[in-house]
Amino acid sequence: MKLNCDMGEAFGTWKMGMDEEIMQYVDQANIACGFHASDPLTMSKTVALAKQHNVTIGAHPAYPDLVGFGRRNMDIAPTELKALIQYQVGALQGICKAHGTQVTYVKPHGALYNTMMADFSVLETVMQAVSELDPTLVLMVMAIPESDQVRALAEKYQLTLWFEAFSDRLYTDEGRLTPRKQSGAVHQTFDLIEQQVLQLSEQGALTTESGQLLAIQADTICVHGDGAHAVEAVQRIRQVVDGASAL
Amino acid sequence: MKLNCDMGEAFGTWKMGMDEEIMQYVDQANIACGFHASDPLTMSKTVALAKQHNVTIGAHPAYPDLVGFGRRNMDIAPTELKALIQYQVGALQGICKAHGTQVTYVKPHGALYNTMMADFSVLETVMQAVSELDPTLVLMVMAIPESDQVRALAEKYQLTLWFEAFSDRLYTDEGRLTPRKQSGAVHQTFDLIEQQVLQLSEQGALTTESGQLLAIQADTICVHGDGAHAVEAVQRIRQVVDGASAL
Amino acid sequence: MKLNCDMGEAFGTWKMGMDEEIMQYVDQANIACGFHASDPLTMSKTVALAKQHNVTIGAHPAYPDLVGFGRRNMDIAPTELKALIQYQVGALQGICKAHGTQVTYVKPHGALYNTMMADFSVLETVMQAVSELDPTLVLMVMAIPESDQVRALAEKYQLTLWFEAFSDRLYTDEGRLTPRKQSGAVHQTFDLIEQQVLQLSEQGALTTESGQLLAIQADTICVHGDGAHAVEAVQRIRQVVDGASAL
Amino acid sequence: MKLNCDMGEAFGTWKMGMDEEIMQYVDQANIACGFHASDPLTMSKTVALAKQHNVTIGAHPAYPDLVGFGRRNMDIAPTELKALIQYQVGALQGICKAHGTQVTYVKPHGALYNTMMADFSVLETVMQAVSELDPTLVLMVMAIPESDQVRALAEKYQLTLWFEAFSDRLYTDEGRLTPRKQSGAVHQTFDLIEQQVLQLSEQGALTTESGQLLAIQADTICVHGDGAHAVEAVQRIRQVVDGASAL
Repeated sequence: MKLNCDMGEAFGTWKMGMDEEIMQYVDQANIACGFHASDPLTMSKTVALAKQHNVTIGAHPAYPDLVGFGRRNMDIAPTELKALIQYQVGALQGICKAHGTQVTYVKPHGALYNTMMADFSVLETVMQAVSELDPTLVLMVMAIPESDQVRALAEKYQLTLWFEAFSDRLYTDEGRLTPRKQSGAVHQTFDLIEQQVLQLSEQGALTTESGQLLAIQADTICVHGDGAHAVEAVQRIRQVVDGASAL
Repeated sequence: MKLNCDMGEAFGTWKMGMDEEIMQYVDQANIACGFHASDPLTMSKTVALAKQHNVTIGAHPAYPDLVGFGRRNMDIAPTELKALIQYQVGALQGICKAHGTQVTYVKPHGALYNTMMADFSVLETVMQAVSELDPTLVLMVMAIPESDQVRALAEKYQLTLWFEAFSDRLYTDEGRLTPRKQSGAVHQTFDLIEQQVLQLSEQGALTTESGQLLAIQADTICVHGDGAHAVEAVQRIRQVVDGASAL
Repeated sequence: MKLNCDMGEAFGTWKMGMDEEIMQYVDQANIACGFHASDPLTMSKTVALAKQHNVTIGAHPAYPDLVGFGRRNMDIAPTELKALIQYQVGALQGICKAHGTQVTYVKPHGALYNTMMADFSVLETVMQAVSELDPTLVLMVMAIPESDQVRALAEKYQLTLWFEAFSDRLYTDEGRLTPRKQSGAVHQTFDLIEQQVLQLSEQGALTTESGQLLAIQADTICVHGDGAHAVEAVQRIRQVVDGASAL
Repeated sequence: MKLNCDMGEAFGTWKMGMDEEIMQYVDQANIACGFHASDPLTMSKTVALAKQHNVTIGAHPAYPDLVGFGRRNMDIAPTELKALIQYQVGALQGICKAHGTQVTYVKPHGALYNTMMADFSVLETVMQAVSELDPTLVLMVMAIPESDQVRALAEKYQLTLWFEAFSDRLYTDEGRLTPRKQSGAVHQTFDLIEQQVLQLSEQGALTTESGQLLAIQADTICVHGDGAHAVEAVQRIRQVVDGASAL
């Protein structure tokens, strides 16, 4: 089980996240590409930091919406969506090549991520975009009970998938995240987070909001690099995951 | 002698230039990368058009200034300049790979181009940016009497250079463009343009504002794709160049 | 019956519309405010042109989306929508004050306009935004059969409304525009346009797609300043409207 | 003696400064207008906060450069500079009117501020911009030994000036700020800051880098709302200023 984390989400003089403290504890860095956050210089610094810690680099493309941090739905046509994914991934590839490293995977960000997991026609456009650019790029998607459907779609585009689960979010019985505005949607204690990570790592499952055990096969767990207790949370998740893999 | 032309300078719904009419007459397309003009979808369409006409693709990176079309000087630090060139070239490489083609060269745009030709420390930063990204990328620069100095700098970064001259601009005795506000700075007749192209192609020289013949060794001539008579001008320059090379 | 037209939709060096030719034929200029089109200098020039022709000035605020020209839906929260309308209208007011003139009305643009006419909760947010800023500003909205509902809402915010109809668009029996992708959605002949303008001016009605006569009470007709025959179309609509008002 | 502070320099989800803690201690808030920082919603919240604390509101217009935070020189033509100042001030006026308050003064930001204090032709363009928009707006400028020249220029445009001095910056003998890269350019102790504030408040003077006492007549002192000790520094400056005025 790997850990992935959004990284490089500063913008100009504005900071976000504790990349320098967190990078050493994760395996995969989802690096912002300038459309929801970041700028060329921030990308360059983030790539250098990831390389220094031997962290696998992923592109984190988004809708073009800095003010909304890519979290707002935008009605973008498929041909344009393809082009803006290829633009962003290519830009990060350029920065990576300049640092003697490379982009290994693509994980769409925010509203684009949510939309593609809710509407498989958008997911298919994302797959086309990545496959046209380079079919050896891995696509990171959300692990859901219908992952077989997602796998079938990916095969059509010769894409490898990495499935991710969330360490600190409560799931519905359908294997989706409960809405943030719902009470309990985000785990507030280390215990709840550790329990979910342990279940995901050892059992390939998690406990849903109704208390059911739901099978969720994940390759990687998404952790967060901002917030008051981010560093401690990531350290503890790292220990749980390492302990589980040592069994 | 090749012909190069700025292409893909539309932005969203706004048009610029007659790319579809001009593309067939040129050898090299300097494609805007989203910082002074263009957007991912426009880049994708422009790359497709260039590929269709077997036109060599160059990245045309610029300062981040859409409103000013990249023509205004900005005081950008070297580390940031490197990153924003690598970002833009990488973005176009991503779009190109998706179309099964590639970026062959880099030609900085507007104020960045003027600044690097006037201040060789900026030129050196541009060279570092390109060389770090991929030293097989060619850098297109202005052919000037001191081209040897530019060549020496390029060798340091293992870069190949293509030197360009301008078909419709009056040169000073120092081999620089006379300022646009000066009367006669832009050749207004086909005769003047054709004469300059012919001199450049056959003699490796041009006639300066004082009437002197000045040696200018150019690999490519820059033509313009916008303006009332752009298509006819490019067609005629094409004929002159083809005639000269048939000698 | 007045004529209104979108104006000032250039952006930096990119042109759009024939403002200089059209301005003399219209009564009301909907001036872009920098979020879907325009920039401060373009706004300043457009205000000067409107003032010169004694054309009433309206602010034309939009979603923040230059690449999409404000035509794409964005999921913007009500508090943010209010602020971005007040920002854009205020910005145009600043430019107007510098020219010794003022903003008289507000007409939302593109996707924002469509959304507010389809979802009255968004319309109410727009009304709040305008009313908070200055309740003497008129709000221009689409004339629809349920205009009474819109009027009732406007009274709550002490706002005067101007209702507009479209000269060149085919209407459904429900008094809405037929989708652009539908055949016949845009009138392609001057005859059809003139007939619709005449009906609106003299009868307060128009002929829908099914051939029914539908009552539409409009204060102003929207004309277009771009397209191959824009100037001639506006001239002819002007004549029809002036003839009708002379009866 | 008043205290002024840059406020509202967040951008979307990115935070900057401790506006909520600092606002109560200052008299004048220089509110960012969206070009170097801020967005409409942030402006609306900042105006509400200033109003709540009875703080005088100033517009803080800048060059259009979010990534560079308005700190990089840009070569902007006078007509465009005027328009972009009027746009930004007008936008903040719109937000203020919606909150039942108003903009009282204008203080240019960053590179624009530095440039206008170094090149009086730029200062004159700024004055024209403000005067055209509303000559009752006060212009805040840097207090320098040649303030008489600045006053003469302002009279030409019927503008009132407020002169500001800096609490934590070392001055040259010419009454300019020593460059930030120079050792000692920024006072690192509360003692140095308090001493400079006291001198400015009581003597209308400060001690320059060579140890000379230089007369600087200031109406307001600029304090900073970010940095580790910002709140304590502002509290202490407030006490010094209040103590001086109580004499």
